[in-house]
Amino acid sequence: MQFEVTILGSNAAIPAHGRFPSAQVLNYNGEVFLIDCGEGSQFRMNDFSIKRARLNNIFISHLHGDHYYGLIGLLNSFHLNWRENPLHIYGPSGLEEIVNVHLKHSRTELRYKIHFHPIVADVPTIVYDDNTLTVETIILNHRLPTTGYLFKEKKYLRKILADKILQYEIPHNLINEIKAGADFTDNTGKIIPNQELTVDSVPPRSYAYCSDTCYTENFVEQIRGVNLLYHEATFVHEHEARAMETFHTTSKQAGNIARLAEVDKLIVGHFSARYANLDTLLSETREVFADSYLAIEGTTFAIESSVAV
Amino acid sequence: MQFEVTILGSNAAIPAHGRFPSAQVLNYNGEVFLIDCGEGSQFRMNDFSIKRARLNNIFISHLHGDHYYGLIGLLNSFHLNWRENPLHIYGPSGLEEIVNVHLKHSRTELRYKIHFHPIVADVPTIVYDDNTLTVETIILNHRLPTTGYLFKEKKYLRKILADKILQYEIPHNLINEIKAGADFTDNTGKIIPNQELTVDSVPPRSYAYCSDTCYTENFVEQIRGVNLLYHEATFVHEHEARAMETFHTTSKQAGNIARLAEVDKLIVGHFSARYANLDTLLSETREVFADSYLAIEGTTFAIESSVAV
Repeated sequence: MQFEVTILGSNAAIPAHGRFPSAQVLNYNGEVFLIDCGEGSQFRMNDFSIKRARLNNIFISHLHGDHYYGLIGLLNSFHLNWRENPLHIYGPSGLEEIVNVHLKHSRTELRYKIHFHPIVADVPTIVYDDNTLTVETIILNHRLPTTGYLFKEKKYLRKILADKILQYEIPHNLINEIKAGADFTDNTGKIIPNQELTVDSVPPRSYAYCSDTCYTENFVEQIRGVNLLYHEATFVHEHEARAMETFHTTSKQAGNIARLAEVDKLIVGHFSARYANLDTLLSETREVFADSYLAIEGTTFAIESSVAV
Repeated sequence: MQFEVTILGSNAAIPAHGRFPSAQVLNYNGEVFLIDCGEGSQFRMNDFSIKRARLNNIFISHLHGDHYYGLIGLLNSFHLNWRENPLHIYGPSGLEEIVNVHLKHSRTELRYKIHFHPIVADVPTIVYDDNTLTVETIILNHRLPTTGYLFKEKKYLRKILADKILQYEIPHNLINEIKAGADFTDNTGKIIPNQELTVDSVPPRSYAYCSDTCYTENFVEQIRGVNLLYHEATFVHEHEARAMETFHTTSKQAGNIARLAEVDKLIVGHFSARYANLDTLLSETREVFADSYLAIEGTTFAIESSVAV
């Protein structure tokens, strides 16, 4: 089961140094989730061979242009490529008006249905839920209402032990119940506790996307222990005052969030156009949290299962 | 005096094969005019070192996304880069609403003033006029109201002959009048006709941008003899039926317009995403009009003055 994040763009505000604005895709077992969609995201999807046919859900953090200006182009290309599957868009309510005003003036009636899921950046809320994955909002603190997104694999069923199935002659139709935690009553009436029949499965995996925000520890508990955290680090430590002023975060502050939340791995991104070279930004982050990486476009960060499921 | 066109993007509808959607810049003596602004135009301006500080006028042909989706990103980047000079945008009236709905949702008040010049695609109209250049609309025939743009250098003043200034003791303050065509009366009352005092200057240069349109000869007279014509050629000859259906033009049809209008040189562009290779499209165009070229991104087409002015 793949669970991997590919960076499409990571620059703040203005494209510079060949870096595109914010966009990422999460590939969960072949299903593609797009997270933010800065201008040119569709070009990057071509460049990195992202399978659009499996893209059905788009999550937008907020309505600064560097996070969504590529959306209308992608939607239009879906239309021109004869998409028929419905598309779900999660983000601030203004998105619907923005998309519709474009469609109106080009007299376009899309060949597919868009379901807008307006998000109120107020309290963490589960906005997406399928058999295997949930997505909940993370409340960030920025100049506009802004939400991050926490992608959480659902807990796997417990693994049932093959020798116990034989030993207790467990019928096939009870297997799933037992995997889900039920005890088993054999035909003598004896109750075999679930603990004896099953072992715990691998822990579910998780990815937290936090961009844009000033430094805040408000969501640390919510993202505690995630396998992978993307946190914006627009500025190096020296420009901390500028970070506060613009409701952004520095390298060290991002590292600190990762440290406090005890995540496995940190990606930093949303780099200010003032930095052609990102070495300082990375080394400062690593001073605080060693397992940190730059959100370089085209890089894929995979979260492996602890053991084969 | 530079008069040159640089291609930023030339693909139709959907970006493909590394080709960006439509956008060009015309550099007239350092002043930059942007013609159409498909998604990613600002990236291409970076790539090709286009001087944005000298960009004050943007011309949009119509409201299909591949011709304007890059506009809001460029406007926003101007804002973030502290632009103060007013900007003029010529194009369909819907542009103002589109731009404003984006700005509203990002709560952005631009640091500079945008003057929208709504264009009615009805009859050819001069929409821009300065000391040296005019721009008039070309009425195209597409699925949406669409205008091309004809950039015409103004006729230079006539060249006054130095020896005649000495011979007739022409006072300095009359020079410009005579360059503009006036006769000269000497202090005996004798009238020296302008023809004796001046020679014609080099012919003014012109560039016509025609995208998107079905095949129509309606504007041939208007563009007759231009130095450089850009005409869309979305399809190869084989796909003529598809061209008609979508209100586009083929290679040979574009060549035919160039031939009928007796232009000096033809650029074809707006290539369908179905063609990875453009060799056929070019060779077919050249069968009809030899001096034809592909609108390859990054290429600059210069129109030289016939002689030094």
